[in-house]
Amino acid sequence: MSRVGVYPGSFDPVTRGHEDLIRRSLRFVDRLVVGVAEHSGKQPLFTLEERVELLKTVVAGEPRVEVTAFRGLLVDFARRVGASVVIRGVRAVSDFEYEFQMAFMNRQLWDQLETVFLVPALELAFLSSSLVREVARLGGDVSDFVHPEVERALKAKFAK
Amino acid sequence: MSRVGVYPGSFDPVTRGHEDLIRRSLRFVDRLVVGVAEHSGKQPLFTLEERVELLKTVVAGEPRVEVTAFRGLLVDFARRVGASVVIRGVRAVSDFEYEFQMAFMNRQLWDQLETVFLVPALELAFLSSSLVREVARLGGDVSDFVHPEVERALKAKFAK
Amino acid sequence: MSRVGVYPGSFDPVTRGHEDLIRRSLRFVDRLVVGVAEHSGKQPLFTLEERVELLKTVVAGEPRVEVTAFRGLLVDFARRVGASVVIRGVRAVSDFEYEFQMAFMNRQLWDQLETVFLVPALELAFLSSSLVREVARLGGDVSDFVHPEVERALKAKFAK
Amino acid sequence: MSRVGVYPGSFDPVTRGHEDLIRRSLRFVDRLVVGVAEHSGKQPLFTLEERVELLKTVVAGEPRVEVTAFRGLLVDFARRVGASVVIRGVRAVSDFEYEFQMAFMNRQLWDQLETVFLVPALELAFLSSSLVREVARLGGDVSDFVHPEVERALKAKFAK
Amino acid sequence: MSRVGVYPGSFDPVTRGHEDLIRRSLRFVDRLVVGVAEHSGKQPLFTLEERVELLKTVVAGEPRVEVTAFRGLLVDFARRVGASVVIRGVRAVSDFEYEFQMAFMNRQLWDQLETVFLVPALELAFLSSSLVREVARLGGDVSDFVHPEVERALKAKFAK
Amino acid sequence: MSRVGVYPGSFDPVTRGHEDLIRRSLRFVDRLVVGVAEHSGKQPLFTLEERVELLKTVVAGEPRVEVTAFRGLLVDFARRVGASVVIRGVRAVSDFEYEFQMAFMNRQLWDQLETVFLVPALELAFLSSSLVREVARLGGDVSDFVHPEVERALKAKFAK
Repeated sequence: MSRVGVYPGSFDPVTRGHEDLIRRSLRFVDRLVVGVAEHSGKQPLFTLEERVELLKTVVAGEPRVEVTAFRGLLVDFARRVGASVVIRGVRAVSDFEYEFQMAFMNRQLWDQLETVFLVPALELAFLSSSLVREVARLGGDVSDFVHPEVERALKAKFAK
Repeated sequence: MSRVGVYPGSFDPVTRGHEDLIRRSLRFVDRLVVGVAEHSGKQPLFTLEERVELLKTVVAGEPRVEVTAFRGLLVDFARRVGASVVIRGVRAVSDFEYEFQMAFMNRQLWDQLETVFLVPALELAFLSSSLVREVARLGGDVSDFVHPEVERALKAKFAK
Repeated sequence: MSRVGVYPGSFDPVTRGHEDLIRRSLRFVDRLVVGVAEHSGKQPLFTLEERVELLKTVVAGEPRVEVTAFRGLLVDFARRVGASVVIRGVRAVSDFEYEFQMAFMNRQLWDQLETVFLVPALELAFLSSSLVREVARLGGDVSDFVHPEVERALKAKFAK
Repeated sequence: MSRVGVYPGSFDPVTRGHEDLIRRSLRFVDRLVVGVAEHSGKQPLFTLEERVELLKTVVAGEPRVEVTAFRGLLVDFARRVGASVVIRGVRAVSDFEYEFQMAFMNRQLWDQLETVFLVPALELAFLSSSLVREVARLGGDVSDFVHPEVERALKAKFAK
Repeated sequence: MSRVGVYPGSFDPVTRGHEDLIRRSLRFVDRLVVGVAEHSGKQPLFTLEERVELLKTVVAGEPRVEVTAFRGLLVDFARRVGASVVIRGVRAVSDFEYEFQMAFMNRQLWDQLETVFLVPALELAFLSSSLVREVARLGGDVSDFVHPEVERALKAKFAK
Repeated sequence: MSRVGVYPGSFDPVTRGHEDLIRRSLRFVDRLVVGVAEHSGKQPLFTLEERVELLKTVVAGEPRVEVTAFRGLLVDFARRVGASVVIRGVRAVSDFEYEFQMAFMNRQLWDQLETVFLVPALELAFLSSSLVREVARLGGDVSDFVHPEVERALKAKFAK
């Protein structure tokens, strides 16, 4: 039996923390579909296409990972790609409360989908896309936090 | 002595969780005034009038409950309707921190008003209006989470 | 209809924080039964009888409050005294998690019993019986935190 | 490739919450080893042998689950049974902090072992072995929370 | 050796809580630079200039405190003013998680800058600028929470 | 003006996390007194004398740090050694709640004593004395977490 996992997020942009989670996920799924969600509320920094492209660059060479955009409910997306597991990283407490809510809601919507939480690498545990955007916007060095290609994209974005 | 409670919120829209809280409140107040607050910051999905109407539909047949919109400070509203108790539900930790702040502030503004926190039914503990809006917006089934009338209103809203 | 509340705890010993909660409770119950629980695990500082006596001293003159020891399940005790409401104070987050657990368990055991949480006076929000015992044991001044009679009892205890 | 998971705990006694976690775990491991840890500090209610026996009763008929006692470090146990994944359930926030600590420590001790957190069934989310022991000790009905065999064992224990 | 601290924030507007933190900070730094940050995201109520002016009014007469606006990264600002310590107040749990993130990020960006957290006066522990703005906007009395000059500025703002 | 800080704890035993905090503290106090508290409740693994000796070994060569045992209230100890600042590290949320309580209590007992919280090095943020004791007791390798002398002492302790 082949196990498929989905790793959903907005990845605006993908960070070293996300990369770490993807690597960890591959330890217990056979195939991982990274699902890039359209932002519902606030305007993202990168377009959906840009976010997908950056992720593809970052996971290139990892044949078991697929990157794709998705619209609509996560449970419908998971069903479509044949996933039985949703992967989520947890960073902090406030985080976790929201994650709990989502996990229960998704289970209510489709009870064949199990959410599993992974612990990021300690040195990445404080990282978030919004923090990276903020530092980059203010001209700070984000090379420790993102892939070189993402760093380049951030610089291009804020040079405008 | 007749005890009056207020149950304030934005109810955008009212969920099964709110209904549950209203029922529980009636165990220790004689009369409950549900106060629908104008949204201060972000644009609500339903207008103030729509939110009041949906609540009225939902609590119809419960003679001890009254639904009304309010503007201004909660303490002033409570004083106006003769309430001595504010009812709040608690869901999560981050929630609770904010609730604590509000309770202390309201007590500072009028020390005759006591805030009491109730625990929602377990199966509704993960529910929130924003989660319901999100699921409905994405075309998900929310019939477990809201009154049929609210479900209809959500569908109408997102069909536009 | 007369509303009876129970306020359970180990009160080892009763603090100004507990007194504050008792006063606040009287705003929405007609009668309050303070239930002093036997310690299940660790050895208390004061015996059950001493804890009841100190509480009686502290609430003397308040005709709507009754103090009594109890053994067994809280829900059985509440049923016996005709209470429909359990009063609990919340201080902190870790606290609250435990309180949530108890509230759900008690509801499962008897669904006619509602738990309500009250916010203590701000200046007492950091107080706990164990902190008071610790400070008294080390010879610190606890007169701001407990009734004079309790202070005397603590001194007598630690003078031994 | 066959994936083996370990689900460690003291299971004093096993509850419906643990059973739920075991079932969920089987969705993404091929084989699950439930590891019953010796209590390090406090005296358990049930002996190590009793706890193992009750678990075996509860998971009987599930060929992919094995129950065994273990002494020493979890990472050594996991290595011995060929596990690459540790399964943990999360209930509450304070819980989670401790779990985080353990997960980081275990990763430091053996970085090939990944900890994954699962969300229990909502109606079991408030359950814990200690709560069950407490209710049983006070004569309460725990039949909703544990397997009939465990209920019998609890009654026998407290009848003594 | 002279120790310089920075106390960064948006101060929209400065509250009695901020004043309290400034006073406490002076106990272990020789000079304190209050850094008023430009709002990155949402529109502030007061302009950067107004916020700086109100702070200057509030700390007038305190020769060891300097108020200045800053743009860009906090670590760059701290370096520029010769500070080795960042002062932050903590109010609540959700707060603290964010603060942790920022402290780790800033340390990564410049490891000579240490973040220290101070506990506000208990009676101000629930206060925040956003709560003050909200109460003032609704016509409530904020004289307990802010300096008279700030109260005047809030009234002028909302009278418009 | 010379600033003296106290860093209180039970240090059972001192870990790399404590060493990190000591180093960080020296950035804003001129002299640091590490106060080793007698355990009030549970039996420590190391005697008071052993804990003081291990700390002295660990901080040897740091002329601005002094190690001493203390009995009684922290505020009295701080007064005796001329300290105006208490240093505390924060690791986790549940931690922090307790720390808040202590900080408020100590301020109430002596308002000239300010508590400051420091953030440990990220790679030590999950470390605690109890975790180290547990791992050492089970025969695990703790050389990453403690000074070689402490490792030797732990081995000697558990070899008995």
